[in-house]
Amino acid sequence: MSPGLDAGLLSPVWAGTPVHAATSDGAWLAAMLRVEVALARVQARLGVIPDSAVEVIESVARPERFDLAELAVRAREAANPVVPLVSTLTSLVAAESPAAADHVHRGCTSQDVLDTASMLVSGRALADLESCLDRCAAAFAELAERHRDTPMAGRTLTQHAVPTTFGLKAAGWLAGVGEARRRVHRLRTEGLPVSIGGAGGTAAAYAAYAQAATGADLVGELVEGMADELGLAVQVVPWHTQRVPLADLGWALSVVAGVLGKFGADVQVLCRTEVGEAVEPGPAGRGASSAMPQKRNPVLSTLIVAAARQVAPAAGVLAQCMLAEDERPAGAWHAEWQPLRDCLRAAGGAAHTAAELAEGLAVFPDRMLENLHRTGGAIVAERVNVALAPVLGKARAKQVLARISAEAAAGRGTFDQLLANARELQESGLDGAAVRELLAPQNYLGAASWFVKRALDEYGA
Amino acid sequence: MSPGLDAGLLSPVWAGTPVHAATSDGAWLAAMLRVEVALARVQARLGVIPDSAVEVIESVARPERFDLAELAVRAREAANPVVPLVSTLTSLVAAESPAAADHVHRGCTSQDVLDTASMLVSGRALADLESCLDRCAAAFAELAERHRDTPMAGRTLTQHAVPTTFGLKAAGWLAGVGEARRRVHRLRTEGLPVSIGGAGGTAAAYAAYAQAATGADLVGELVEGMADELGLAVQVVPWHTQRVPLADLGWALSVVAGVLGKFGADVQVLCRTEVGEAVEPGPAGRGASSAMPQKRNPVLSTLIVAAARQVAPAAGVLAQCMLAEDERPAGAWHAEWQPLRDCLRAAGGAAHTAAELAEGLAVFPDRMLENLHRTGGAIVAERVNVALAPVLGKARAKQVLARISAEAAAGRGTFDQLLANARELQESGLDGAAVRELLAPQNYLGAASWFVKRALDEYGA
Amino acid sequence: MSPGLDAGLLSPVWAGTPVHAATSDGAWLAAMLRVEVALARVQARLGVIPDSAVEVIESVARPERFDLAELAVRAREAANPVVPLVSTLTSLVAAESPAAADHVHRGCTSQDVLDTASMLVSGRALADLESCLDRCAAAFAELAERHRDTPMAGRTLTQHAVPTTFGLKAAGWLAGVGEARRRVHRLRTEGLPVSIGGAGGTAAAYAAYAQAATGADLVGELVEGMADELGLAVQVVPWHTQRVPLADLGWALSVVAGVLGKFGADVQVLCRTEVGEAVEPGPAGRGASSAMPQKRNPVLSTLIVAAARQVAPAAGVLAQCMLAEDERPAGAWHAEWQPLRDCLRAAGGAAHTAAELAEGLAVFPDRMLENLHRTGGAIVAERVNVALAPVLGKARAKQVLARISAEAAAGRGTFDQLLANARELQESGLDGAAVRELLAPQNYLGAASWFVKRALDEYGA
Amino acid sequence: MSPGLDAGLLSPVWAGTPVHAATSDGAWLAAMLRVEVALARVQARLGVIPDSAVEVIESVARPERFDLAELAVRAREAANPVVPLVSTLTSLVAAESPAAADHVHRGCTSQDVLDTASMLVSGRALADLESCLDRCAAAFAELAERHRDTPMAGRTLTQHAVPTTFGLKAAGWLAGVGEARRRVHRLRTEGLPVSIGGAGGTAAAYAAYAQAATGADLVGELVEGMADELGLAVQVVPWHTQRVPLADLGWALSVVAGVLGKFGADVQVLCRTEVGEAVEPGPAGRGASSAMPQKRNPVLSTLIVAAARQVAPAAGVLAQCMLAEDERPAGAWHAEWQPLRDCLRAAGGAAHTAAELAEGLAVFPDRMLENLHRTGGAIVAERVNVALAPVLGKARAKQVLARISAEAAAGRGTFDQLLANARELQESGLDGAAVRELLAPQNYLGAASWFVKRALDEYGA
Repeated sequence: MSPGLDAGLLSPVWAGTPVHAATSDGAWLAAMLRVEVALARVQARLGVIPDSAVEVIESVARPERFDLAELAVRAREAANPVVPLVSTLTSLVAAESPAAADHVHRGCTSQDVLDTASMLVSGRALADLESCLDRCAAAFAELAERHRDTPMAGRTLTQHAVPTTFGLKAAGWLAGVGEARRRVHRLRTEGLPVSIGGAGGTAAAYAAYAQAATGADLVGELVEGMADELGLAVQVVPWHTQRVPLADLGWALSVVAGVLGKFGADVQVLCRTEVGEAVEPGPAGRGASSAMPQKRNPVLSTLIVAAARQVAPAAGVLAQCMLAEDERPAGAWHAEWQPLRDCLRAAGGAAHTAAELAEGLAVFPDRMLENLHRTGGAIVAERVNVALAPVLGKARAKQVLARISAEAAAGRGTFDQLLANARELQESGLDGAAVRELLAPQNYLGAASWFVKRALDEYGA
Repeated sequence: MSPGLDAGLLSPVWAGTPVHAATSDGAWLAAMLRVEVALARVQARLGVIPDSAVEVIESVARPERFDLAELAVRAREAANPVVPLVSTLTSLVAAESPAAADHVHRGCTSQDVLDTASMLVSGRALADLESCLDRCAAAFAELAERHRDTPMAGRTLTQHAVPTTFGLKAAGWLAGVGEARRRVHRLRTEGLPVSIGGAGGTAAAYAAYAQAATGADLVGELVEGMADELGLAVQVVPWHTQRVPLADLGWALSVVAGVLGKFGADVQVLCRTEVGEAVEPGPAGRGASSAMPQKRNPVLSTLIVAAARQVAPAAGVLAQCMLAEDERPAGAWHAEWQPLRDCLRAAGGAAHTAAELAEGLAVFPDRMLENLHRTGGAIVAERVNVALAPVLGKARAKQVLARISAEAAAGRGTFDQLLANARELQESGLDGAAVRELLAPQNYLGAASWFVKRALDEYGA
Repeated sequence: MSPGLDAGLLSPVWAGTPVHAATSDGAWLAAMLRVEVALARVQARLGVIPDSAVEVIESVARPERFDLAELAVRAREAANPVVPLVSTLTSLVAAESPAAADHVHRGCTSQDVLDTASMLVSGRALADLESCLDRCAAAFAELAERHRDTPMAGRTLTQHAVPTTFGLKAAGWLAGVGEARRRVHRLRTEGLPVSIGGAGGTAAAYAAYAQAATGADLVGELVEGMADELGLAVQVVPWHTQRVPLADLGWALSVVAGVLGKFGADVQVLCRTEVGEAVEPGPAGRGASSAMPQKRNPVLSTLIVAAARQVAPAAGVLAQCMLAEDERPAGAWHAEWQPLRDCLRAAGGAAHTAAELAEGLAVFPDRMLENLHRTGGAIVAERVNVALAPVLGKARAKQVLARISAEAAAGRGTFDQLLANARELQESGLDGAAVRELLAPQNYLGAASWFVKRALDEYGA
Repeated sequence: MSPGLDAGLLSPVWAGTPVHAATSDGAWLAAMLRVEVALARVQARLGVIPDSAVEVIESVARPERFDLAELAVRAREAANPVVPLVSTLTSLVAAESPAAADHVHRGCTSQDVLDTASMLVSGRALADLESCLDRCAAAFAELAERHRDTPMAGRTLTQHAVPTTFGLKAAGWLAGVGEARRRVHRLRTEGLPVSIGGAGGTAAAYAAYAQAATGADLVGELVEGMADELGLAVQVVPWHTQRVPLADLGWALSVVAGVLGKFGADVQVLCRTEVGEAVEPGPAGRGASSAMPQKRNPVLSTLIVAAARQVAPAAGVLAQCMLAEDERPAGAWHAEWQPLRDCLRAAGGAAHTAAELAEGLAVFPDRMLENLHRTGGAIVAERVNVALAPVLGKARAKQVLARISAEAAAGRGTFDQLLANARELQESGLDGAAVRELLAPQNYLGAASWFVKRALDEYGA
């Protein structure tokens, strides 16, 4: 392999996954060529260039005819890869038909080609991504349904807080992924426009060529024809320097990264040696350490979290690049390309990985129950408070529970024992059975089950 | 003024504008109290607490009864300001009615109060913002309409490229603001939910109190009641750790900042001493320098650009905070508050400033025309190319124009003179009148006017 | 309190701590006035303005004579607060002595005042910060020394990996803080320069006034005099648009935030209910929940982590603002002020909080030991591997341990029992005592103690 | 080319430049292998493994024996590429000598290999970078010297402010690059440490193997041996989770990007069609447009600015990753690799490009002079103010100049004519010659020349 080629060695989250090939240099090259071909087709259909030219252009506009590494280096001279691409394409066409060469890239500009190609690449990457989110959603729905009544410790600021259910946790993941999926879907189907502006955003050369050939400007027809040919949205006006589509992409991918990162962060807590409520799926050898034979690292969630941390900063570059002066900025456009790809890859790889993790996550209800009891009932102190307040008065109830909690923390007994022995409890008239009921974590799940249902109704298949 | 108080001294873009007061500490305090009052009202309506308690709570839950600076310092002990707020509120209520004090913050948790308050504050700030964007859109539409045929130099990578119109430039600003406005509007009216989750996201204490008082959980009723009372959206599930609403806010405000920053960046170029095509509005003294009597700085665009650069990074914090582990994270939630306010303020101040700038921007068509002719016709070299290519062949036409451009750049004549004298032009059969027509920049505006119409149709009032 | 004033309600990490007052609007105002006074003093010393003017300027240049909120609003007209400040200062001086008013802000420019004031504010904030880091370092050194031989589970990717010591963990914190402290100290003592450039970076008006009064330019004398008067470094050239000092500040504060955030993140793991190896210090009531009587939240680490997440993005704005075109940029300078303050406050508040946490952190060696044994010896599987490899061959040793680990994970026994019963172990000739020695976690601490010593030697008091 | 391979197509700023190959996947692979070989050599030297093993390891640890794309995909299973690398390396060694295979990666852990390799890659990339900065510094020094007295308009907030010199502008660039170079040099020579921590930061397995073979732990000897062998710095303690070296890298590269971005931003203003004071160097065809024959785009500055915008956000990821919990974090480490490379590449490519631009930049003193006179003397209004104030009184002088400036802006004459005709000027007693002297921009250059000398003394060769 040539010394300058990269294969994803530093990015295991996406190396080898579908988004890798979908966003490679080769994919961008193919997309740029597809734009050039589409332009020729539409212009021929409109009578601007001869059909014969299209055939030649189509026949040579194949990625394998181009040397990526050489294009990348030549891109330096124009600050973008389209100039050398068009130069080579024109030569290849000319070699077949000198006349056809005049019709390559007709009236066009580098930014039209690259922006439209970026939308094509993004569209394909988002389609993959959406199907991964579908898989996540289905798996989360299944987990939410199955564990609707599986109690576990709810944790806030790292501490056991009140009981919850694993079903509700999964329903939260479902809600997150459901919202992310909607944003991706809307963007993919409505928010990726063709870019037709020409050299300065007036489409003047497109119009001039069309005028010369047909007597009409045909700019509207060109925009619609291109959108139709490429499966992209129609633009209202040229967006060379109105970069909302890029900002939207960055945002949607940040939301994807965020909801998947939340899932990953939760899994990591559940997998902690001391918690032990879940384990990641995997064939033998996954999560292995080179040194420690006993290790079974939660590598999928690690990959997801690592990817999630990289998306928002890259998306931030896209947002910053909206400050694009003039009719084409000297840098703000050029700074978008790599961060766009970084966002697509990190989010796409995270989604691919999350689908596998969601579908294979093993959870241990027994261990959840064991942990739930670990604080000796303190986890339902809120409930005891609710129950004692009307009996003892709110202030006194709180005081009692604070005293018992402090004693339990100091190791003078477990919360439930201390409570059972508390003088005030005896005053309260609650009998042993009532206290036991009160202290049973699974009896204090609030609306968990109802929230699960709502999530399933809203985001389930 | 107390030594720790800030008045916006380092942020002239928003100091004293509506978003300043709308997002001040006092506004957040008022919003948190409004949430506590709404909770009491809804719970009373549902029969969970007595009506008498509501009256007392309402009567004392007024911002002027609280010491902001003291609350801010006490917030440290709980890592959030709600704990001391509720403590003080309870004391104030108890001073009026000990019985009513039991019904303050019933079943509630700090995050429900703060998140809901943040949505209220955001909603108000977005409403201001949207009206500023409306003003921008109206002003841009007016400029686009009025200057639909005002030719000027289109500039790409800092160089004169092809002619465009000032109307199309304004139409681009209109399109940007139009898209931003849609996102803000949708978010403001549909995307700001109440937060009802209770201590661990199960709403268990809300349910327990309701159960005790009414025999039913009433969680759904509580959520809908709160949304209704506060004019916020209904949540599907608790979003304590599913932070899509925050990410959406950050994104929408980044888009606002981006499209306004683009406007500001353009104005700065137009105002450059050497360009001189526009000047900012302002009373005497605006843009003055302390040292240079002749200075008239473009301060409004400067404020806008400075604000725009600060939004995306702060929004990025919101996106990063989506990785919120467990049922409430130990840090990710707490890191959101200040960046949310920073986003609201910078974007809100930028919008306020942009409205003033858009409504008062003075542009100079004569200077635009003068600049348009500055390259001696080279700005329409693309058009000449389109015209000569069929006559001389594409390759030869390009060669001729490259030679002439190089000679003009080297100072051996102006582009139009060199072209007129070129041997190849004489061969081409174009007469003087044809060449003059060809070189008139105002004759090469492409679809500029048509794009203006599209923008007006899509985003105009 | 006026509706637009902020008291730190959304930022409990710094509200009320020393950095709050040190970086308030009032502090910036005081610093700007100090710069104006210093300028007058130095110019008088050099004979450029009369001594009598200095006295008047000093007498009125007191913060309480200025209305911060009004200055903040007036700042809008010039896009910076210095213009209205100088205007008011001049009026105040003129009211005392019309002649003295001519000597206010002599030859100066807004950026000289604001940049120099920012360095003064930063210097004071860094001094506070450095003393907090000193406290952290002392506390960490003490912990490292005391717990040099306290064994605990080393955790990697959330899983028990190999044994370590709490002393080494504290030594790591010490090393981090030690490095951060060095960067802060160097920056504070060498990296905060005065800013003397005048309107366009040539110091022309300073020179002209000096020339008129003394016959010499005295620019070098002015630079040195100001540095001396204000305790700042001397600049090499004006840095209006060479913003390395700001980038350095952002970086040093990011490093501070990073090392303290690491400390906070570690404490949060140790405090987890299931881990229970540490607890935060605090008076009664700290870390309390409004709903859950048993809760003792790790609020200090939460504040630290929340602060740490906000520093790097704000520092990133400072780095981006280095792209400052011309002799003063239209936005890049103005975008720095608030992010600089955000960095100082978040890092300063984190350091203040970390000092309290470091000095009061309670750790539980017994619980560490209990957790260390939780995997039944699997935590020393690496060591067993090292011991068995020479006996059984590396490949076979690994195979055996992988099998035993898998069986233990599957619940078929504990690692140590399974190992003791393994046929291969009997072959190995290791007797029971040898195996027990091998499996004792405290016998596999590697160079932990030696690394602790190195850290103490390098970074200890 | 395989579909997943990238050649830099979206990053013309670094594609094909030295930093491309220096930071490619292949470079990382080679560096990781170099670490494994160095470990074997040092361990053999210390008597821990036999010399014979080293020879075999060296003979097979050659990049061409490994399939990068396959490693990248296999890295997924362990969340890092070292695990499959070691596995393949061990197989290759075993194929030569089964006995030697036991000595591969002895006592080591993935993070030691990858972190040390990253330091090696960074060191090489920084060396290239530093030599580019040297070239920039030399070119800037030459420009500063040559144009020490070349007057031009100083511009602030886009407006002509006061005169300056091109020499001083170049001296500012020199100062920026000089500071950046110092940070890079210090970091490169002192701040890139080896990483020796073993599985959990205690170096326990290294020590155990050494103990078994030699009776001593030899951890200190190993650390020093590795540093010596690889030309890296010695670590104080393991830095698996104390990531100051990464933060320092991100910061130094941000400073590089910032000072070069400032240079690029300045060049872009100077190149504007309306300004025309500079033009970028380049062979025929550079900066060409695919559509506009006359275009000569400032592509080098565009590439630099585009790169500069990408460094700080990537560096921000490194800073955020400092929050690395435990003895190895589940994500924070893994998120560093790609951003580190992005920083190295963008900054390295920018430096390579800046060196070419700095060495070849053509500037036009005549055009500078022409622009300097464009405001008809208003650019020296500050100077006139300094001169008139003592004569007319400060307040009246200011008033006069404000009136004249406003009249000039309104087109009622040029500043110098209006001034010459002003009644107050006649009162002032200044004769025509004095006024002409006053209005000559080249007479108002302040300390520009002196600052140039200071910059040359401090940062010149």
